[in-house]
Amino acid sequence: MKAVVLLSGGMDSLVTTAIANAQGFELAAMHVNYGQRTWHKELEAFRLIADHYAIGERLEINADYLAQIGGSSLTDYSMPISGADLQGLSIPTSYVPFRNAGFLSMAVSWAEVIGAERIFIGAVEEDSSGYPDCRKVFYDAFNAVIALGTKPETSIAIMTPLIEMQKSEIVRKGMELTAPFELSWSCYKSEGKACGVCDSCALRLRAFERAGMRDPIDYEQRPDYI
Amino acid sequence: MKAVVLLSGGMDSLVTTAIANAQGFELAAMHVNYGQRTWHKELEAFRLIADHYAIGERLEINADYLAQIGGSSLTDYSMPISGADLQGLSIPTSYVPFRNAGFLSMAVSWAEVIGAERIFIGAVEEDSSGYPDCRKVFYDAFNAVIALGTKPETSIAIMTPLIEMQKSEIVRKGMELTAPFELSWSCYKSEGKACGVCDSCALRLRAFERAGMRDPIDYEQRPDYI
Repeated sequence: MKAVVLLSGGMDSLVTTAIANAQGFELAAMHVNYGQRTWHKELEAFRLIADHYAIGERLEINADYLAQIGGSSLTDYSMPISGADLQGLSIPTSYVPFRNAGFLSMAVSWAEVIGAERIFIGAVEEDSSGYPDCRKVFYDAFNAVIALGTKPETSIAIMTPLIEMQKSEIVRKGMELTAPFELSWSCYKSEGKACGVCDSCALRLRAFERAGMRDPIDYEQRPDYI
Repeated sequence: MKAVVLLSGGMDSLVTTAIANAQGFELAAMHVNYGQRTWHKELEAFRLIADHYAIGERLEINADYLAQIGGSSLTDYSMPISGADLQGLSIPTSYVPFRNAGFLSMAVSWAEVIGAERIFIGAVEEDSSGYPDCRKVFYDAFNAVIALGTKPETSIAIMTPLIEMQKSEIVRKGMELTAPFELSWSCYKSEGKACGVCDSCALRLRAFERAGMRDPIDYEQRPDYI
């Protein structure tokens, strides 16, 4: 069975790809560039990871509209990137309004055309940045939209294998599946070495620390987040 | 209250704009170019209609991904455009897979940033081309996704004022509201005169005939569809 994997190039989408691959799906990989600060680096990670898993069917999408619309520190470079808020008490400035619905819509359009029946996305609810569109209820509701909004003969469902995992479990799962973490990119801020202090770096570093592993990518600094 | 109107430039989105305007909403107009055959003409219609209603806040989006993905005669120029199938027995080749979900996602992202609480879309279920994403159940399900996928303090709902109307009622409603039909564009095929024979022209011509009105735009031919 064919599955589309939404592959940003970060650790969550990497491990999601590793899981879908281990489950025996024929993978098609989709990447969205939406004018985010680190898009060169993320696109490079996407290509390297897709190469690693020998994924032939690929789609690289430009969704500049998210940058046009703004409202997020990822696309509006005049807004500061939130530092680590590991309590998850507020929605960080990196939240891109309703971004995942846009990405899922694109993935469903593609899945319908190429005949894929699953869409894998590396959303994490339990141990995440608190984005509203990373919650299981959101994906359940979106599955209802897919069932109603596609041709009757299609059968497409979203898979969120990480949704209930802690980030440290995601690291362990990835290690177990020998996912190439060294090819992935999570930093929101830098395209050189990862900054180590943005919300995304902080969550990643803490996850590796808690898993008792060392993150193989280079950081400007590695604060203690445990 | 501010409302985003999805304004393709066709007769349905024109009348939807007229209705939202008559209801007193402060309008913000969004147009999506997705590499469809008649995009120049539709963009022109969008701008003229937005000028007519003195809409200052506008967003013109490029969503080339739908053309990249293909699967529709609107974006894949090697596929033939379906002729009129006014029985609505099959989904025509002009169906763009899951397109409206993509457009709605974009509109919600924008609405969340500019503080709009309504999104108007000119979807028609009763008397339409039979696209799955033009049905009321689809929009009801999408409203659930919006409620779950946006920030808790936002309150955005999709409005589909035409959903249960016959096309001829839409013409009458537009005439009642003095909507500028002469500025609108519905043909899927041509950018000169409207072809008069594609599915979209046929539905439009039949609607005007049934309403007992004459469509003010120019056609290559005006077959009898009544």
